Amino acid sequence: MELKGNCLVAQSGGPTAVINSSAYGVIKKFYELNDKYKIYAGIYGIQGIMNEKIKDLSCCDRKYFENLLYMPSAAFGSCRYKLKDAKDSEEEYKKIFKAFNKYDIKYFFYIGGNDSMDTAFKLSKYAEENNFDISIIGIPKTIDNDLVVTDHCPGYGSAAKYLVNSAAELWMDINVYDSSSIMVMETMGRDTGWLAASTGLIKKFIPDVNQLIYIPEMVFDEEKFLRNVSQALKVNRKLLVVTSEGLKDKNGDYINTDSGLYSRDAFGHKQLGGVGRYLQSCIKNNVDKNVKMTEMGVPQRCAAHLASKTDVYEAISAGEKAVELGIKGEKDCMVYFKRESNSPYKISIEKVSLKEVCNKVKHVPINYINEDETGVTKEMMDYVEPLIKGKLEAVDNSLLYNYIDFKSI
Amino acid sequence: MELKGNCLVAQSGGPTAVINSSAYGVIKKFYELNDKYKIYAGIYGIQGIMNEKIKDLSCCDRKYFENLLYMPSAAFGSCRYKLKDAKDSEEEYKKIFKAFNKYDIKYFFYIGGNDSMDTAFKLSKYAEENNFDISIIGIPKTIDNDLVVTDHCPGYGSAAKYLVNSAAELWMDINVYDSSSIMVMETMGRDTGWLAASTGLIKKFIPDVNQLIYIPEMVFDEEKFLRNVSQALKVNRKLLVVTSEGLKDKNGDYINTDSGLYSRDAFGHKQLGGVGRYLQSCIKNNVDKNVKMTEMGVPQRCAAHLASKTDVYEAISAGEKAVELGIKGEKDCMVYFKRESNSPYKISIEKVSLKEVCNKVKHVPINYINEDETGVTKEMMDYVEPLIKGKLEAVDNSLLYNYIDFKSI
Repeated sequence: MELKGNCLVAQSGGPTAVINSSAYGVIKKFYELNDKYKIYAGIYGIQGIMNEKIKDLSCCDRKYFENLLYMPSAAFGSCRYKLKDAKDSEEEYKKIFKAFNKYDIKYFFYIGGNDSMDTAFKLSKYAEENNFDISIIGIPKTIDNDLVVTDHCPGYGSAAKYLVNSAAELWMDINVYDSSSIMVMETMGRDTGWLAASTGLIKKFIPDVNQLIYIPEMVFDEEKFLRNVSQALKVNRKLLVVTSEGLKDKNGDYINTDSGLYSRDAFGHKQLGGVGRYLQSCIKNNVDKNVKMTEMGVPQRCAAHLASKTDVYEAISAGEKAVELGIKGEKDCMVYFKRESNSPYKISIEKVSLKEVCNKVKHVPINYINEDETGVTKEMMDYVEPLIKGKLEAVDNSLLYNYIDFKSI
Repeated sequence: MELKGNCLVAQSGGPTAVINSSAYGVIKKFYELNDKYKIYAGIYGIQGIMNEKIKDLSCCDRKYFENLLYMPSAAFGSCRYKLKDAKDSEEEYKKIFKAFNKYDIKYFFYIGGNDSMDTAFKLSKYAEENNFDISIIGIPKTIDNDLVVTDHCPGYGSAAKYLVNSAAELWMDINVYDSSSIMVMETMGRDTGWLAASTGLIKKFIPDVNQLIYIPEMVFDEEKFLRNVSQALKVNRKLLVVTSEGLKDKNGDYINTDSGLYSRDAFGHKQLGGVGRYLQSCIKNNVDKNVKMTEMGVPQRCAAHLASKTDVYEAISAGEKAVELGIKGEKDCMVYFKRESNSPYKISIEKVSLKEVCNKVKHVPINYINEDETGVTKEMMDYVEPLIKGKLEAVDNSLLYNYIDFKSI
């Protein structure tokens, strides 16, 4: 198939440890297939493209692109920007397509999550309706792992690997003293529990771990929670409680201490902080004073130092596949992973129309959650284990030695 | 030199990523030198020994000991227990020496920090005064790096490596959006700034990093802090503020929001949390709303997944050297590291009497802090860089695959 013009790649939404690996896949594949057309990067996602923040990557020494494999965060910048419908905001669309025309972009690869796929979908619809000849291909990316259709999302495996390792380390840490010790570990995940649920895997390696897991897919009930904790402490004085940042009660109210129902503790004191801090104070006031809290925070989305090799290579493949689809003439789709088998672990990379994925959310399925809603099943462990495997062979402190500011070279 | 009896090794104080490597060094060396006498582990430090929680390690398959190199936290348990003077608490001393006698312990290796060296010193004095024939050798360990005499402490290099990598990752993360973005990163260190100061090393790899560092060795002044932040943001809208958990104002009051002077924000609202949260709210209320906070928390003392190979091997060597000294007849000393040269990096391992090290604190020296007290000098960077080098060659997710509960086998 003949190429028709230049290519534009951009990144969107929250960063991950491997979002740059997908950009690498796009760049590598596009260069492999031709040296006639140019490859551009949109700086700060669609928002930058709108303002013609577009960088010609031929200015970069090609050897620099390898460094993308070791760098977290979005090397070309990102945005959190949801395009309105074209009828409500045509100016924006005009600016974007003006930029596409100016740079003769025939292939636009957008690496992002749910909202970014919505943007890609709207742009492809606008292109079709206005007879712009451009392929718009989405490449999934999110540590939240909440895109539908795809078995999993690039970025999730590395975040899960960081959390599984950290959960094991925290478990070992609380086992150190000859006293009761409870650790509450708060992961990201406001609406889905994929990240917190991944930590259930430590039971495979540390069979006697005493762990409770709470995710948004379960209804949170404080009395039941306190019963769970008390019961767990009867078996073992050490306990690891893992929670997603978003838990809701039976009325659908978020359990967090910043405002509303859950903003005061048992003594009426005002509470600050999220779910982790709230659960910590519940345990402290009702069960046991020896309770610490670790909010895993921003590092879980950027801990490239512990990136999963599987995740990095899959992210690259997703980028490469997107280029192949674009060149084949696909106009409007997202690449996705289909799990062909689990042992040996094998995936294929397929395509799905953008309309099928945007604005939908994939939750942790019920058979991944144990019966008393205090943890995960073997199915969840089997699902996540292959995704966290492998580490990059690289120089020591590869993250540091490989840093390049692509936005400003 | 002939061995005189059995050996006891125990761990004390807060865990580190490599405290088990020092235990490994002791065990390996002792087994190399003899197979006549036994090696015991004191479970939960001196507190466990007092209650005869003593485990004969000949019950363990020797191949298991290699796993100690990949495991954080104290495999044999730990305690935070400061022995009183013998005259005030002779019962405790009697219990400890009764256990020593019962198990024919002629060599006691205590791996720990400041307080643990005080315990070792008191025990050795008691032994001398009461004619007990026992060698008591301290092996330094602390992520805080605050023991005097030694160039650095085993455990610090790995914690620093985790923090340096995390600081670089957080810097990349806040650079992702086309807007101002400030990250406050809180490290451990209540009285010394070694951990926070280590993050200054990222400037070597990311020369345009916009970073401010605050440590207990500087007097904290809120107005100056806000001036520093405003000024830094004029240069670059992205800013990384690293702070030790212990900062004090000119009157010596801790800057934290749990109580006292700093417990209310500019609007009189009650604050919870530590220094990081306080600085975040200072910036939010006075300079810029786009400010996040990451409390590095417990993972910094147990992140074995990113252990420094240098640190692991030095920790082993410290354990081996302790055994050599004990067998040579040394009765009362701590092993320490002397930096012979920095390029190439080379240390020797020496001994110092316990009296010289216990109850003293080593602060970050003034020439490691820059003139306007907002960061570190090249001297600090040169000091820390060799300590974080190298990674262990091991299986993937080595931490998980190598877990063994030594306390219960």
